[in-house]
Amino acid sequence: MIRPDGRAADELRPTTITLGAQTFAEGSVLIESGQTRVLCAVSVEEGVPQFMRGAGRGWVTAEYGMLPRSTVTRNPRESKSGRPRGRSQEIERLIGRSLRAVVDLEKLGEITLTVDCDVLQADGGTRTTAITGAYVALYQALDTLKKRNKIRSIPLSAAVAATSVGLIDGQVILDLCYEEDFRADADFNLVLTDAGELVEVQGTGERGPFSRDALDQVLETAIAGAARLFEEQRRAIGTLSQL
Amino acid sequence: MIRPDGRAADELRPTTITLGAQTFAEGSVLIESGQTRVLCAVSVEEGVPQFMRGAGRGWVTAEYGMLPRSTVTRNPRESKSGRPRGRSQEIERLIGRSLRAVVDLEKLGEITLTVDCDVLQADGGTRTTAITGAYVALYQALDTLKKRNKIRSIPLSAAVAATSVGLIDGQVILDLCYEEDFRADADFNLVLTDAGELVEVQGTGERGPFSRDALDQVLETAIAGAARLFEEQRRAIGTLSQL
Amino acid sequence: MIRPDGRAADELRPTTITLGAQTFAEGSVLIESGQTRVLCAVSVEEGVPQFMRGAGRGWVTAEYGMLPRSTVTRNPRESKSGRPRGRSQEIERLIGRSLRAVVDLEKLGEITLTVDCDVLQADGGTRTTAITGAYVALYQALDTLKKRNKIRSIPLSAAVAATSVGLIDGQVILDLCYEEDFRADADFNLVLTDAGELVEVQGTGERGPFSRDALDQVLETAIAGAARLFEEQRRAIGTLSQL
Amino acid sequence: MIRPDGRAADELRPTTITLGAQTFAEGSVLIESGQTRVLCAVSVEEGVPQFMRGAGRGWVTAEYGMLPRSTVTRNPRESKSGRPRGRSQEIERLIGRSLRAVVDLEKLGEITLTVDCDVLQADGGTRTTAITGAYVALYQALDTLKKRNKIRSIPLSAAVAATSVGLIDGQVILDLCYEEDFRADADFNLVLTDAGELVEVQGTGERGPFSRDALDQVLETAIAGAARLFEEQRRAIGTLSQL
Amino acid sequence: MIRPDGRAADELRPTTITLGAQTFAEGSVLIESGQTRVLCAVSVEEGVPQFMRGAGRGWVTAEYGMLPRSTVTRNPRESKSGRPRGRSQEIERLIGRSLRAVVDLEKLGEITLTVDCDVLQADGGTRTTAITGAYVALYQALDTLKKRNKIRSIPLSAAVAATSVGLIDGQVILDLCYEEDFRADADFNLVLTDAGELVEVQGTGERGPFSRDALDQVLETAIAGAARLFEEQRRAIGTLSQL
Amino acid sequence: MIRPDGRAADELRPTTITLGAQTFAEGSVLIESGQTRVLCAVSVEEGVPQFMRGAGRGWVTAEYGMLPRSTVTRNPRESKSGRPRGRSQEIERLIGRSLRAVVDLEKLGEITLTVDCDVLQADGGTRTTAITGAYVALYQALDTLKKRNKIRSIPLSAAVAATSVGLIDGQVILDLCYEEDFRADADFNLVLTDAGELVEVQGTGERGPFSRDALDQVLETAIAGAARLFEEQRRAIGTLSQL
Repeated sequence: MIRPDGRAADELRPTTITLGAQTFAEGSVLIESGQTRVLCAVSVEEGVPQFMRGAGRGWVTAEYGMLPRSTVTRNPRESKSGRPRGRSQEIERLIGRSLRAVVDLEKLGEITLTVDCDVLQADGGTRTTAITGAYVALYQALDTLKKRNKIRSIPLSAAVAATSVGLIDGQVILDLCYEEDFRADADFNLVLTDAGELVEVQGTGERGPFSRDALDQVLETAIAGAARLFEEQRRAIGTLSQL
Repeated sequence: MIRPDGRAADELRPTTITLGAQTFAEGSVLIESGQTRVLCAVSVEEGVPQFMRGAGRGWVTAEYGMLPRSTVTRNPRESKSGRPRGRSQEIERLIGRSLRAVVDLEKLGEITLTVDCDVLQADGGTRTTAITGAYVALYQALDTLKKRNKIRSIPLSAAVAATSVGLIDGQVILDLCYEEDFRADADFNLVLTDAGELVEVQGTGERGPFSRDALDQVLETAIAGAARLFEEQRRAIGTLSQL
Repeated sequence: MIRPDGRAADELRPTTITLGAQTFAEGSVLIESGQTRVLCAVSVEEGVPQFMRGAGRGWVTAEYGMLPRSTVTRNPRESKSGRPRGRSQEIERLIGRSLRAVVDLEKLGEITLTVDCDVLQADGGTRTTAITGAYVALYQALDTLKKRNKIRSIPLSAAVAATSVGLIDGQVILDLCYEEDFRADADFNLVLTDAGELVEVQGTGERGPFSRDALDQVLETAIAGAARLFEEQRRAIGTLSQL
Repeated sequence: MIRPDGRAADELRPTTITLGAQTFAEGSVLIESGQTRVLCAVSVEEGVPQFMRGAGRGWVTAEYGMLPRSTVTRNPRESKSGRPRGRSQEIERLIGRSLRAVVDLEKLGEITLTVDCDVLQADGGTRTTAITGAYVALYQALDTLKKRNKIRSIPLSAAVAATSVGLIDGQVILDLCYEEDFRADADFNLVLTDAGELVEVQGTGERGPFSRDALDQVLETAIAGAARLFEEQRRAIGTLSQL
Repeated sequence: MIRPDGRAADELRPTTITLGAQTFAEGSVLIESGQTRVLCAVSVEEGVPQFMRGAGRGWVTAEYGMLPRSTVTRNPRESKSGRPRGRSQEIERLIGRSLRAVVDLEKLGEITLTVDCDVLQADGGTRTTAITGAYVALYQALDTLKKRNKIRSIPLSAAVAATSVGLIDGQVILDLCYEEDFRADADFNLVLTDAGELVEVQGTGERGPFSRDALDQVLETAIAGAARLFEEQRRAIGTLSQL
Repeated sequence: MIRPDGRAADELRPTTITLGAQTFAEGSVLIESGQTRVLCAVSVEEGVPQFMRGAGRGWVTAEYGMLPRSTVTRNPRESKSGRPRGRSQEIERLIGRSLRAVVDLEKLGEITLTVDCDVLQADGGTRTTAITGAYVALYQALDTLKKRNKIRSIPLSAAVAATSVGLIDGQVILDLCYEEDFRADADFNLVLTDAGELVEVQGTGERGPFSRDALDQVLETAIAGAARLFEEQRRAIGTLSQL
């Protein structure tokens, strides 16, 4: 199978992360992965939601949106329909859980970090790209808190990044673009740490079941492929001192 | 670790499926798994949603709800808040995908099957219990269609059932009750076919990452445990002729 | 006129009330009246709504819902439309008023009792069946409060039950099933106490007016018929000690 | 008991109906009953709702609203809350049913009449005042249709009017103002025809049950009192030719 | 150009303001301008919105609505759609700003004045008519506060009134009725003080741009025309002592 | 008065317009004006809204949104509240009217152009910046339609751009940043054509009225200042052939 952009089956799209994309935010990045582009901004707020007060622990939550013309055909604006889409809510919950898995909420203290991921352009993999970028924006926000002496150290136990894998005609394909995602027999979103562990595994066989063997190959491909994402995250974080 | 109800780590809760729970529906069951009880009803409607018309294929969709006092403390009624909960929508999408994976939509023809899963009592595992029960209600609805000569054969490629697995203090625990779910370091929902394949894998490490080894054990435990669910599904389907 | 199920004009449907239908609730019953089945659960909450605080009086409120496939053809889920139906709100208000008429709110103290009535199957008379069942669930919840020493005695001044009556082709018909309700020239919902008094009278002549004479016969038929409902309530309450 | 405005127990408030209150409407009145003032406008639209099409019958429906400062303290605007109030919907349904009971929908043909009742000032009895006024506005709209040769005769079988009755400290009181309504042990809304028949009976004992005897007195008081309302309706209709 | 009602190009419609139109309100008027009729009621509430507390300043806010049959064809009720119309919100914001421009909020103290403008009949110019009437209702409410010794003097720096001007086929036309508004190439809403100053200028050329010269003529016409509105406001305020 | 960024009173912020910012859109730009940054995308759709069908004329409509962290403190996401903000709707209506004033809708034919303006960063003047950018995106979309032979020529009668002016302590200040906007005694949004005409004039004196003289100076300052915006629009359009 020849991929639309000529990549090898196990090859990621070129991915770059640029810090400081929304100046007013405590942390922000623009992440570009092929034609997919996502703005991630982290906002710091004193205090935590009602049900968590007094426990001394912080909170990390995420919201996700797509600009109407981020897609090939225009998508109605979510604010006009009067109700959030199920897909958006599912992605928001995924991003929030993925980041919380590596944040030490005790050390954060009673602070809420809200991560806004807004898709400027969508060519597949917006949720995984959002997670990979959000980690760097979160790092910057925590670094800001540290510089303001709100926290003593960056309370992160590992870096977290995400990618997708698909099964297409029996082949395992890494980092699907929209056209590939549409054709996939099964697709997987994997959230991983740079210590080689898993944070989220979501696999769906909409056109039929898949075997355990296939799942094993999917995991291997994702773990190998994610290395490049962690590198780019480290490179971006390295530019923090230049802002 | 001793489980609240004394089960072995790899032991399912007693599960029974009773056909015909909502007389007016084309297919319906009450599924009870420990203290969790879910009503599943399948409604048949001629035609398919707008965007699918004319293609000759059918559609299976699901809705999910909880009665306000299905839970230990009362849960506000979703219809009062003016907007569906993200959790409910996520579960509805999961149930729908899981069933569609084993239905031959071409053979179904332009018919929509709506699967309503309503939780009467919730003690953990409501989404997996709903899927296991919904499959049987779906079978009954398809059997009704066959008897009415709307379809020639039951267009199902396999049976589908679901269960949960958790990691608690390093142990792999099958079919979590609410108390266990609350304590789990990571939890997994697995949707499987009776042919030993996977339809959905959802694993989440909210308190931190988990290893690939742990995921392997989780999959084995789920596959072994699901055998009992397929048996109970077959037993319930066997009572169809007695209705 | 021969009734669809062969009953006499002044004959109730067989009605049974089963206590403990939703284990986690302070009070709960499943009431079955012919093919109509309603789950009633009473939840106890400390405190009263804002506008009542500090007066030392309690509050009883009700909510009502129908499962989508409780009806012969599927009814869209109320939570999906983003707004409660007028009919549901009307019924909720009726159930709440009916119960409050026999509860001594002073003796209850600043406690809120929320009564959830959810229709599992609907064959006419769901609102009257809900009231008859809700009274027993309320009794159980008050009994629970008494056992927990929150109240000294059960603050109920009478039992309350409800039934419907219709005028069909000039005949007075008790306890309408759906098919009869649909054909009725006028229909009445009557809420009564076991002391022979009235709590609510709602009579509607949608196909035209009705005479005072007809109303008199309707009242007599309802009062006579309700005796059997009060008996079944007493029987169910008698099983409380066995739970 | 001395009434706040010195009326006898069985005395209506002075009531006047003025035709043509909203010039653009096919029928409209301003009805004033004591301090209560309601604008009723009837709009004619070709066609009927989807579910009634092709049957050759017309439809009459009603909507009800209160201006924010119709009341002693300001009432938030319903359009701001995003959801209609249960009370408003209940009243709308009552007005619609009351009018349909005297309209021959077959003779109307596939036309929809929408009756808007908007309360300019509220001092009790807004729903009954609305019905009494709406009947006259409806008459004018039908007269307009007749003049336009859309219908041959006015398809009304009787006049319809409504009033309230309350039980206060054992006394039967006709046509309650707000202060009396607030104090009533039980209150009743009665919709009647000028042929002495009943269209709707709604009686509620929120502070406790009431006896059948009391209900009998309530009905007599309402029937006697309504005579004056039918007179005023006739007088107003008599001015139609002067518009 | 001959105007539909025969007015000169720079002639206002006959305008009358009647005080005390909604008895329960602290200030209220019915303003009639040609066929346009608007009820304005001002409600006084202790305290200010959350974000303003503690600053010792008051607040003036406005809400605007149209009765469904105020218009030539019926307009759906805003409360039914679940969301306020953009047009209504725009008008509410305009009325609020216009009044706040002449109120000394410091002298008012922490009091909120809510101005409800409800259109009973609409024949163009409802927003400008509402502002002209609202000023008088506001005056009455402030007078009420003064009589209750809540404020020492009426904290108003000038009278405020509004009118519309249109460009039709190159002509400048004052105070457009609906038919004229519909035909206008450009239309302007001007809010003015009786000291000859401007509070709001809103000019829109939907069918194409307009020149600065045209704008100059529009302003002159509006300022000259508004004199009559200030006169009628003074006359109405002069009747305050007679209420 | 020294401005926060050292500009002269009648000096615009540096403004650049970059074409092709959202690849999938028929027309799109990123416009940057000082720290304010807005993405404008124009989507082409066959057909027009229901009420315009069959007349052979096209339609141009606009939507406006702000990313949650475009502002100094985070702004809740509009899609979460279930209702659009009044401010957003007002701006959408302004952008739509401004563009329609220069489009020949007859020549466009039955095509709908939807203009999405999304604010990535907000430092005052987002609505005027959006209009200036939207014109260029619209030009590109029309150019695309011309290249596809859907229209014969670009149906635009003039270029349209917008800027704001404020009165601060008696001084006339062009193109306000957020800090200046906050302090202004009166502020104006002016939409102008490159032929020196006006499309929209919106002036508001929230802290008190302003004189006609002041308005004259405001208009002169805006007209002079806008020249630079038309230049940048022409420069950006000049790069179309390079895309």
